[in-house]
Amino acid sequence: MTNLYLNSCVDMKEAINCARMNQYDSITTPLVFPGFDREFVQKPMVEKHKIFGRSDTVMPWKQWLHYVIAAVSDDIDCDSENAEIRDGSERKLSQEMEFAEHVAQQGLIYVKLKSANNINLSRIISTYTKSIILLEVPMTNPNLVASQWRRDVSEEEGQEAEDTWTWWNNFRLHVDFNVKHRLSLVLSADIPSRDEILRWLGEPVEYLVVPSNIFIRNNANYPVLSVAHQEVLSLFVRRNNVKFMVKANQHDHSLRYYAEYLNHMHEKYKEVDPMNSLEDVIEIPLQPLFDNLDTYTYEVFERDPIKYILYQNAIEAALRDRVPDEEIDVKTVTLMVLGAGRGPLVRSALNAAANTKRKVKIYVVEKNQNSMNTLHALWREMWPRDVVQLIFSDMREFSPPEKADIIVSELLGSFGDNELSPECLDGAQVHLKEDGISIPSSYSSHLEPIMSSKLYNLVRLISKTENQFQRAKSKVMENTYVVYMKNVYHISPEPQCLFTFCHPNREPLINNNRYKNLRFTAKNDSVLHGFAGYFDTVLYKDVTMSIHPMTHTKGLLSWFSMFIPISNPVNLKAGDEIEVNFWRRVGQRKVWYEWSISSPQMSHIHNLNGRSCDILM
Amino acid sequence: MTNLYLNSCVDMKEAINCARMNQYDSITTPLVFPGFDREFVQKPMVEKHKIFGRSDTVMPWKQWLHYVIAAVSDDIDCDSENAEIRDGSERKLSQEMEFAEHVAQQGLIYVKLKSANNINLSRIISTYTKSIILLEVPMTNPNLVASQWRRDVSEEEGQEAEDTWTWWNNFRLHVDFNVKHRLSLVLSADIPSRDEILRWLGEPVEYLVVPSNIFIRNNANYPVLSVAHQEVLSLFVRRNNVKFMVKANQHDHSLRYYAEYLNHMHEKYKEVDPMNSLEDVIEIPLQPLFDNLDTYTYEVFERDPIKYILYQNAIEAALRDRVPDEEIDVKTVTLMVLGAGRGPLVRSALNAAANTKRKVKIYVVEKNQNSMNTLHALWREMWPRDVVQLIFSDMREFSPPEKADIIVSELLGSFGDNELSPECLDGAQVHLKEDGISIPSSYSSHLEPIMSSKLYNLVRLISKTENQFQRAKSKVMENTYVVYMKNVYHISPEPQCLFTFCHPNREPLINNNRYKNLRFTAKNDSVLHGFAGYFDTVLYKDVTMSIHPMTHTKGLLSWFSMFIPISNPVNLKAGDEIEVNFWRRVGQRKVWYEWSISSPQMSHIHNLNGRSCDILM
Repeated sequence: MTNLYLNSCVDMKEAINCARMNQYDSITTPLVFPGFDREFVQKPMVEKHKIFGRSDTVMPWKQWLHYVIAAVSDDIDCDSENAEIRDGSERKLSQEMEFAEHVAQQGLIYVKLKSANNINLSRIISTYTKSIILLEVPMTNPNLVASQWRRDVSEEEGQEAEDTWTWWNNFRLHVDFNVKHRLSLVLSADIPSRDEILRWLGEPVEYLVVPSNIFIRNNANYPVLSVAHQEVLSLFVRRNNVKFMVKANQHDHSLRYYAEYLNHMHEKYKEVDPMNSLEDVIEIPLQPLFDNLDTYTYEVFERDPIKYILYQNAIEAALRDRVPDEEIDVKTVTLMVLGAGRGPLVRSALNAAANTKRKVKIYVVEKNQNSMNTLHALWREMWPRDVVQLIFSDMREFSPPEKADIIVSELLGSFGDNELSPECLDGAQVHLKEDGISIPSSYSSHLEPIMSSKLYNLVRLISKTENQFQRAKSKVMENTYVVYMKNVYHISPEPQCLFTFCHPNREPLINNNRYKNLRFTAKNDSVLHGFAGYFDTVLYKDVTMSIHPMTHTKGLLSWFSMFIPISNPVNLKAGDEIEVNFWRRVGQRKVWYEWSISSPQMSHIHNLNGRSCDILM
Repeated sequence: MTNLYLNSCVDMKEAINCARMNQYDSITTPLVFPGFDREFVQKPMVEKHKIFGRSDTVMPWKQWLHYVIAAVSDDIDCDSENAEIRDGSERKLSQEMEFAEHVAQQGLIYVKLKSANNINLSRIISTYTKSIILLEVPMTNPNLVASQWRRDVSEEEGQEAEDTWTWWNNFRLHVDFNVKHRLSLVLSADIPSRDEILRWLGEPVEYLVVPSNIFIRNNANYPVLSVAHQEVLSLFVRRNNVKFMVKANQHDHSLRYYAEYLNHMHEKYKEVDPMNSLEDVIEIPLQPLFDNLDTYTYEVFERDPIKYILYQNAIEAALRDRVPDEEIDVKTVTLMVLGAGRGPLVRSALNAAANTKRKVKIYVVEKNQNSMNTLHALWREMWPRDVVQLIFSDMREFSPPEKADIIVSELLGSFGDNELSPECLDGAQVHLKEDGISIPSSYSSHLEPIMSSKLYNLVRLISKTENQFQRAKSKVMENTYVVYMKNVYHISPEPQCLFTFCHPNREPLINNNRYKNLRFTAKNDSVLHGFAGYFDTVLYKDVTMSIHPMTHTKGLLSWFSMFIPISNPVNLKAGDEIEVNFWRRVGQRKVWYEWSISSPQMSHIHNLNGRSCDILM
């Protein structure tokens, strides 16, 4: 999985053989002859210098594709102040890009970014659309490091020591977040701050480049990396599954050891995550109230190892509160499971009753007639028939023979109320006794600003038409998505609470419309692509569940985060205030969210009137 | 054309009659009962107060539509910090908006903006899509004026004295520049700075509101406006063709005089502009090289009263330079008219020869076979056959029997080189003598940042699909348009020069690619919607032509300005630097422009590779 970067190579085939013998799977090297000064303006020279690189017949194209990443020359400066240098560089670059696409269509092309001033470079690069472009950027600016400890570096030079992330950020803003442009990030001897590393982790890093001079020797004289560098490697492998690239001389005697070491590191840190295949995949949230869930979905939900244990704990605590020990024999608790699905909450309730030795009567309410079959089979074969009674009805409409002491439901979505738990429970609470208990008793949504080119591009791709260049349509940018977020940077220190709902709701006139304005501060220069949404809930008293990153319940798998995009990414400076307006609106037959930002720029109101995305009642 | 605003009215029919008798054509007044406190939360009151306004049967709907602008109540505060007030206001506003749309669909609704903090108000207003919404905004903030001369106004109060343009700007940014939201601008006793007035002139002002207390009495004791106010009125009528509204008491004895005065003002200032019907209409630029022009277009071009006189002057000067007075009899000047159309330049050349008494030989080159018929008829019937010779060919390909002393062409577009004059003349100059003259001898494009919701919305409307809410697609935002600009605000002090082309071009290798980076400064808070493009040209020596606003040639009608939009409007603060990158790119068979902004925000590169808009060769 490791690539060998060679500044130049005389014999391409020999270089590939050498790299492969030393455990590298491919090389990165310029295709054109080194130091060959091409001339485009003066006529006789133009003719003479049309031959600028090796023949493409040295290898079959499959080998070009698999073994070679084509690097463009180092001496290109498309953004020079000097129009002649700029013009010559543009021609050189175009010639090399075309040649690279000629030898290996859909291959990889390697381009170095050297400053934040790269408008012309980015313009030319983005006109080549067949290849994946790897953009080399140093993790930290070498000038920056120098200016910190060298007294001979003047202030002026220090000002050039800009954040290298800006080089990359400017490039991709110019080219409108092209999904084919990825990073080749060069590890530096000095490691940047943790937040800067986290920001890089939110970017599409394809390769982590290790220059050979960063290796140190261990006691056995083998090249290894410092513990600090290992830590960085491990983060990038675990979070982004990056590949490695070594920058070394072809005749370096340790070539093989570098590769072996890095291949070993990759194996070691590669995470075995059961959800791995789902990372950064975007899905439309479920609408279980409107659509009936299917077997696969039920199975996924029921597989959660912790959720039903927590529900059982909450029911146990509620049963103990309703019935003191001395009344165990005389009092029966009426319990309703609202939206029982295939019965996991019934099981939790029966377990809780057994553990606490409380007598219960359980009404099991379910509207999905497909899962009613399963419930009936369970009732017939496993459940005590006198304790459990099945009711085939929508929980907002059924009429039970008595009122409940406890209602139990699992209607929460990734954003808390987004599967209409408030509307369902407000409708069902007429069947709850005056002093009855709802499990859950409350839940809150939480919001936080994020940067993720990857998610932004995934959403944009949904609306891709034959016109590849078309920008995102509002419809997909006004939707909410469920995502297992990995390639994401959290822009501000922590999420903030948005909306809270409590049950039962004893307000004289229930109003589930909500509006809130939240303010966040950007920790670092970054790009706002949208917001991550989470929820936490109090099931009963101290029994809680959360997917909020700061309080995430250990082992809880049932919910991914919510991604709420904004139409146009916003470039942020460290310290910028991000002000977001969020609405929950309840209409006649549907509920929806609207959102807008007021700072640092103003956006339009997204999903006005639920025009792009709503939840049907 | 004047409307009467009444704070309240008891009998609607009587009020309308009174207004019409006093020369007003309609009234603006609240539909709901004044001072009627509606209640939405406490149950018994909710029932009691469902009746909140008059019956819609007091008039037939046509009268509602034509005679009444429905004002919403004054006591609405949808953006209060207090959730209860906010909630009550939202309900009130919704009730009134619905009632207004009920009595007169597609009518006008009048809403007051009271602060820059109007996110919830704008959200609710924009959910009503049947009507035109008139947003009342004072031209200057009354608090601001007070804080300048009153010593008892504390600093804190002074801070509330924000620019009222911001109230409107925030509103329309929230609702994404809705074309149905227009301004009702209230004239203040104190008149703001000229630049602030110019900025208002760039906005969609539908009504200019004149409070009765602004009127002063003239010697005959009639109410009139001060000269300064008259000046403001005249600007708004001439530039925006606004209507007037008077705010007065129904029993004011001068009602009739106000209306008569304003109606008179409107008549007086209404401009008789032959191009009036074309203002702010957007058109796609011509491609005369690729498409043949038609009779209508030729006629419009030939109607220009000044253009061909200037050409004639230029040719005269060139003839005098080629042939000194003493050689008049012995020297013949060879002149080529490149792209002669229906011959106006041939006429100019013949006139010039006659005036200067120089002998000429004129080759008339035209590729459009339709206009060749006209040329041939002119040649047969009017032109000296031995002097004029017709050549039916593309000017880039014809082979004349001799080389020319002077080539004359009229290939310039609104943006100078945008109809491929450089490519055509570079191709044709092989037929020009070494020391020959090209008329025009040079031309430059000029660029300047502008604000215009109107133009932005016109461009957006091109791509409107059945999904009304869809935001602009990139394709229309990556086009250039030709517009007679009126409802526009010029954001920075003056245009800057972009690209210049000179002819003949004696460079060893001609390169008509161009790149330039320009920086402008915003004079005032505003919104960047794109750029206006102009050109000027040196026909020969001191004979010039220009549509650059600072140097516009008097009487020149042939060219409107160019509008170059950007995908996403950018909110600007006074003093912000606007940095734009502009490219002219020449490909195999086409030429195109690309553009992007780098500051104050970065944009993607528009029209990359000419994907949305190009000029065919």
